Amino acid sequence: MEALKQAVWEANMELPRYGLVTFTWGNVSGIDRESGLVAIKPSGVPYEELRAEQIVLVDLDGNVVEGSLRPSSDTPTHVALYKAFEGIGGIVHTHSPWATSWAQAGRAIPALGTTHADYFYGEIPCTRPMTEAEISGAYELETGNVIIETFVKRGIDPLQVPAALVYSHAPFCWGKDAHNAVHNAVVVEEAAKMALHTFQLNPQVQPMDQHLLDRHYLRKHGKNAYYGQK
Amino acid sequence: MEALKQAVWEANMELPRYGLVTFTWGNVSGIDRESGLVAIKPSGVPYEELRAEQIVLVDLDGNVVEGSLRPSSDTPTHVALYKAFEGIGGIVHTHSPWATSWAQAGRAIPALGTTHADYFYGEIPCTRPMTEAEISGAYELETGNVIIETFVKRGIDPLQVPAALVYSHAPFCWGKDAHNAVHNAVVVEEAAKMALHTFQLNPQVQPMDQHLLDRHYLRKHGKNAYYGQK
Amino acid sequence: MEALKQAVWEANMELPRYGLVTFTWGNVSGIDRESGLVAIKPSGVPYEELRAEQIVLVDLDGNVVEGSLRPSSDTPTHVALYKAFEGIGGIVHTHSPWATSWAQAGRAIPALGTTHADYFYGEIPCTRPMTEAEISGAYELETGNVIIETFVKRGIDPLQVPAALVYSHAPFCWGKDAHNAVHNAVVVEEAAKMALHTFQLNPQVQPMDQHLLDRHYLRKHGKNAYYGQK
Amino acid sequence: MEALKQAVWEANMELPRYGLVTFTWGNVSGIDRESGLVAIKPSGVPYEELRAEQIVLVDLDGNVVEGSLRPSSDTPTHVALYKAFEGIGGIVHTHSPWATSWAQAGRAIPALGTTHADYFYGEIPCTRPMTEAEISGAYELETGNVIIETFVKRGIDPLQVPAALVYSHAPFCWGKDAHNAVHNAVVVEEAAKMALHTFQLNPQVQPMDQHLLDRHYLRKHGKNAYYGQK
Repeated sequence: MEALKQAVWEANMELPRYGLVTFTWGNVSGIDRESGLVAIKPSGVPYEELRAEQIVLVDLDGNVVEGSLRPSSDTPTHVALYKAFEGIGGIVHTHSPWATSWAQAGRAIPALGTTHADYFYGEIPCTRPMTEAEISGAYELETGNVIIETFVKRGIDPLQVPAALVYSHAPFCWGKDAHNAVHNAVVVEEAAKMALHTFQLNPQVQPMDQHLLDRHYLRKHGKNAYYGQK
Repeated sequence: MEALKQAVWEANMELPRYGLVTFTWGNVSGIDRESGLVAIKPSGVPYEELRAEQIVLVDLDGNVVEGSLRPSSDTPTHVALYKAFEGIGGIVHTHSPWATSWAQAGRAIPALGTTHADYFYGEIPCTRPMTEAEISGAYELETGNVIIETFVKRGIDPLQVPAALVYSHAPFCWGKDAHNAVHNAVVVEEAAKMALHTFQLNPQVQPMDQHLLDRHYLRKHGKNAYYGQK
Repeated sequence: MEALKQAVWEANMELPRYGLVTFTWGNVSGIDRESGLVAIKPSGVPYEELRAEQIVLVDLDGNVVEGSLRPSSDTPTHVALYKAFEGIGGIVHTHSPWATSWAQAGRAIPALGTTHADYFYGEIPCTRPMTEAEISGAYELETGNVIIETFVKRGIDPLQVPAALVYSHAPFCWGKDAHNAVHNAVVVEEAAKMALHTFQLNPQVQPMDQHLLDRHYLRKHGKNAYYGQK
Repeated sequence: MEALKQAVWEANMELPRYGLVTFTWGNVSGIDRESGLVAIKPSGVPYEELRAEQIVLVDLDGNVVEGSLRPSSDTPTHVALYKAFEGIGGIVHTHSPWATSWAQAGRAIPALGTTHADYFYGEIPCTRPMTEAEISGAYELETGNVIIETFVKRGIDPLQVPAALVYSHAPFCWGKDAHNAVHNAVVVEEAAKMALHTFQLNPQVQPMDQHLLDRHYLRKHGKNAYYGQK
């Protein structure tokens, strides 16, 4: 568990380094699938003061198992995603400005080029607006649920599209571990920025050719990948 | 008073660190409510040269009580706001570029997402244009007055919406103390940037759902807040 | 002359620090009005290698008086401006990206807010396109001439509006000395950026109220100025 | 060959310094025309870990001649360009965000001002979309071929316009050596950014005057150049 806490702390510290967070507007978690324990940032602690031993451990019911601080207020969202998306090992939530602008606009980020296609096998979806009951109820849990619903209803594989925009809110991203989730969050922000500028240059732009999307996604993922070192 | 001057100096020095000012285009003040004394940046002193002992003390009539330098030319605006908004302890004025663009456009920044809602309980208003008489008269005092009028006439609580845009000018922000006012100025700039990009992505975007605004504002403010550590 | 060369070198070195130049896309000069000598950056020397002793001295006919390197290829533009605008002591040319975008669009930057008004007493003009004869002839001299023509024909005082955009090219800025010219170049870039975003938020925006323009310009300039320390 | 590897390593390390790459989204190569050997970045190695001895040598058939790591997956594109464009000595590929936005929009970057004209003698073309056969076949080689086709069919001299945008993908740039190719990649990014903002300010803007384009390109290139030191 110490290794997990250390890895989650390091992944959290990457957020300010990549310019993804202002103040405490973000959090990263990682899960140990064997024990079912989730390590997550404590709520509201500034990044410049965050220490590895402050990372909180919670179980998959969201109960604190270790740590003297409150876990992130978004913990129920993280836990819901870990339960529904079995292949993922890390989750990150930020209010990174370009992706958040798409979330506020209520628009999915379409796949417009190979940068996007290298990581996301299709558009990054935006959830439907949450209902009054969801917002007034177990809000953070329901935030997880509306993400899950988006992937289930539209038949999107969360391992192939490791990010979602929550309507009027901001992105949640994930990956095989905490570090990889942050990596994907950086890509979402770059893709969001370039997609906005692409629309400004060509308001009628269409999603990229499916063959090109296949080629780029599959040269980096799956058994026929040939990018990088073996 | 030395502690107040030190705190106001530190808050002023945060402005260049957060990228909110070019040259001397900004100033921060703080008030000691018991004595009614306001500590404020001296006029036109570059941030790289500013020292804590140069912070000027003025009373609520704007008279210099301590300090050998002239206080900020915006001092009458600060004093007017302290007198009208009794719950505030710090004020910051900048020409931060995204918020200033909204002020120049004469538009309020609507609440378009949870980033905004975490800090501002509704839109950040823009004042009406000032009249020739106001501009030619006690201009800086009238700048304070037009901000106050905006909140009074529209029934906005300045503690719930701790910022205003002055038409054709720039933002004024406030908070419980000088440091908190700067914090809010950073949020205004982020919200302004993302709101512009949101409109570019969706020109018909509407203000966010009221329930979502309530949920986010109230989970960070008031007696039922549950964000952060106790 | 050594003091002038040192000041011009320092002003040149401010360009990369303020983010106004990429590579060698800029140059600063200063004039000693008594001797009529102009100190200017040598052509094509990277800023990271530029030393004060490399600053070239030229007379008001553009002849090199001191220095082993060629002066900036824009020297004839600088010299023309010094001859026509007698009150100025420093000139800077950059391709700073926001101001250059306005120049490429062939549009003057209107005064849209107090940031602009604090430094420029009205819009920053854009020249007419240069003719084939001007381009094919003494091009750099004619660049100066078309700036001068813009101010003369439109009755603009170059001391009150210390900058111009050259059509399809980029800004030239000036001031009382080399350092002050760079200061104005920073302001032009900020004003250009905010004006673009203002138009995006309000395509029908009009130039700011004349009384407000007067108030802000005159509180920082002229005998009734009251901004800063005495 | 060690000098070439060192130069190519240095040119690769310039990419993060100029803000042209996120993660490993870029690669630089250089060629020794005498031996026909190409030095290129290994695939997927992070810049912070990249060492000069890891640079891979390949021949003009793309076969690895020296090095224990796989060369960049874009190696066939580089090799194709070296074979077709005989005067070039270095190539760089990035996903720099402004230029990539133009590529995603499927638009050439027109020459709108002198910044562009100082380096590119006309618009920076965008290739046609690649066909399913090209994408499903020897994709990276075909990427090179579609760039070459663009220059041949449109009669563009690759030495006068040392960059191309690949449709739905990103820019490839080149130059007389690896370092010069990176230099041109920086210019493409600046030109792309300014051209987008120019269109936002003036949607009807036309390419710049041909005489002005001639003047600026030719004062820096060819036998009558007079910019810089001799």
